[in-house]
Amino acid sequence: MTHNAEKSPLSLLGLGAMGGALARAWLAAGHPLTVWNRTPERAEALEGARAAATAAEAVAASDLVVVCLLDHASVGEALADADLSGKDLVDLTTGTPEEARSRARWAEERGARFLDGGVMAVPPMVGVPGSGAYVFYSGSRAVFEAHAGTLAVPAATVYTGEDPGLAALHDVALLSAMTGMFAGVAHAFALVREEIPPKGFADLVVGWLKAMAPYAYGVADHLDSGDYTKNVTSNLAMMVRGNATLLRTAEEQKVSPELLTPFMTLMERRLADGHAGEGTTGVIDLLRVP
Amino acid sequence: MTHNAEKSPLSLLGLGAMGGALARAWLAAGHPLTVWNRTPERAEALEGARAAATAAEAVAASDLVVVCLLDHASVGEALADADLSGKDLVDLTTGTPEEARSRARWAEERGARFLDGGVMAVPPMVGVPGSGAYVFYSGSRAVFEAHAGTLAVPAATVYTGEDPGLAALHDVALLSAMTGMFAGVAHAFALVREEIPPKGFADLVVGWLKAMAPYAYGVADHLDSGDYTKNVTSNLAMMVRGNATLLRTAEEQKVSPELLTPFMTLMERRLADGHAGEGTTGVIDLLRVP
Repeated sequence: MTHNAEKSPLSLLGLGAMGGALARAWLAAGHPLTVWNRTPERAEALEGARAAATAAEAVAASDLVVVCLLDHASVGEALADADLSGKDLVDLTTGTPEEARSRARWAEERGARFLDGGVMAVPPMVGVPGSGAYVFYSGSRAVFEAHAGTLAVPAATVYTGEDPGLAALHDVALLSAMTGMFAGVAHAFALVREEIPPKGFADLVVGWLKAMAPYAYGVADHLDSGDYTKNVTSNLAMMVRGNATLLRTAEEQKVSPELLTPFMTLMERRLADGHAGEGTTGVIDLLRVP
Repeated sequence: MTHNAEKSPLSLLGLGAMGGALARAWLAAGHPLTVWNRTPERAEALEGARAAATAAEAVAASDLVVVCLLDHASVGEALADADLSGKDLVDLTTGTPEEARSRARWAEERGARFLDGGVMAVPPMVGVPGSGAYVFYSGSRAVFEAHAGTLAVPAATVYTGEDPGLAALHDVALLSAMTGMFAGVAHAFALVREEIPPKGFADLVVGWLKAMAPYAYGVADHLDSGDYTKNVTSNLAMMVRGNATLLRTAEEQKVSPELLTPFMTLMERRLADGHAGEGTTGVIDLLRVP
């Protein structure tokens, strides 16, 4: 089997916001594309693509089959009647690491090679060079390498390992970190909204968060070394004292502290356990569910 | 009163981690410096500085008096017996906006001009050109301008307005945003710690958080325009669905979701209120305490 990586054909199942963006990127790059969507209007409306009548027909059309559906269950349902033997199945549906591992076993039982992907982008970034969009992949390295050029069309690619769960784990971990950041941003705007113009404040908060993001390197160094006091410049005792000022300010500004208190509570627990000289890394230990 | 901004004398009260760093920065720049600390050993150990026996003596020694003490109450106690008439008092002690406003009134009653400051740095960044350290100032613009050169020695300066509470409000708001980000980082490392090497993961999380920080510009635009659906690329309905994947992954990885659930709960409330097409900006409205 030889591939022209630039123009090799593929099939795509799922034309939601992300699937549609992927389809347009592959079509724009000249890839022959067969598409299927649960509601057929979207597939028929996609200029330049061949609309398959059924998911099984879309699978039959190409060696490389990419799915980007609502969730794990939708993938199983869509592919229930398809003949996957000899196919390379790439699943860009958002899911958990266990769902990806389960899908990998399921695909292998049906004779397909499997690669899972986690898309680190919103749809408008897909297919836009320099947008910063990228996709984590994990599972079959052979699939990743055989289709490297095709997979690189919508976004940069990062292969994370043979364990099919690794792409989802990377994806969800970064989204989780972002969720915390967005929560902090929401609290910050709530504090200032009556007194500081939002746009000027956004400049400050973006600059500050970018400057403070490398804190994660210190956390990594703590986890690597097991020494949570290493290179700590603002220790837990100081941070807990600072938290009290944050909470009093929230009260003054009539802002609920609910987005910050869980982290503060864990910092206090770790401090009470005798770790005044650490940074916040010890909180990670407290998050482990027995 | 004329100042040689480069070498004008000043007094500094408080030689904790931050006060000590400030003192060393001013001494290194050649400023005649009088210092006082509650425990006198630290003042006496500071080479090149004149150690005052009392806070009142330190205040008497210079027109410009900078305080950097443990908290608001410590400032009142330290300055209780000092003659502040004709002095320019700059308070870099961490506190709330109301504490700064109260201190401003207190200082004015005693015949001093008042400037509050919020230091956006950890002590090792102070006095290091290019470290990114800066100080928010608010209150007397005359004090800020009269001592602009001296104040710029330890860190860059940002004047935020005549309301003395504004520096603390900016300071606390940015620290609050950072606290949320650190919480998200803690959750992320907790998810991956058994499976992904921390240092490589730190590279990814730092890059991702820096790329996503400009989300704050969209939030500012929503608050400015009152239209929380403007330019939304990932709406609340999609994000709430994504949250379910984040929570299932936390469960798989045996990580408590407590750092993420408060924000997710508010997103769900806003969605239930009929705002599926918004981003997360509506959460800010829900944080307001009646």
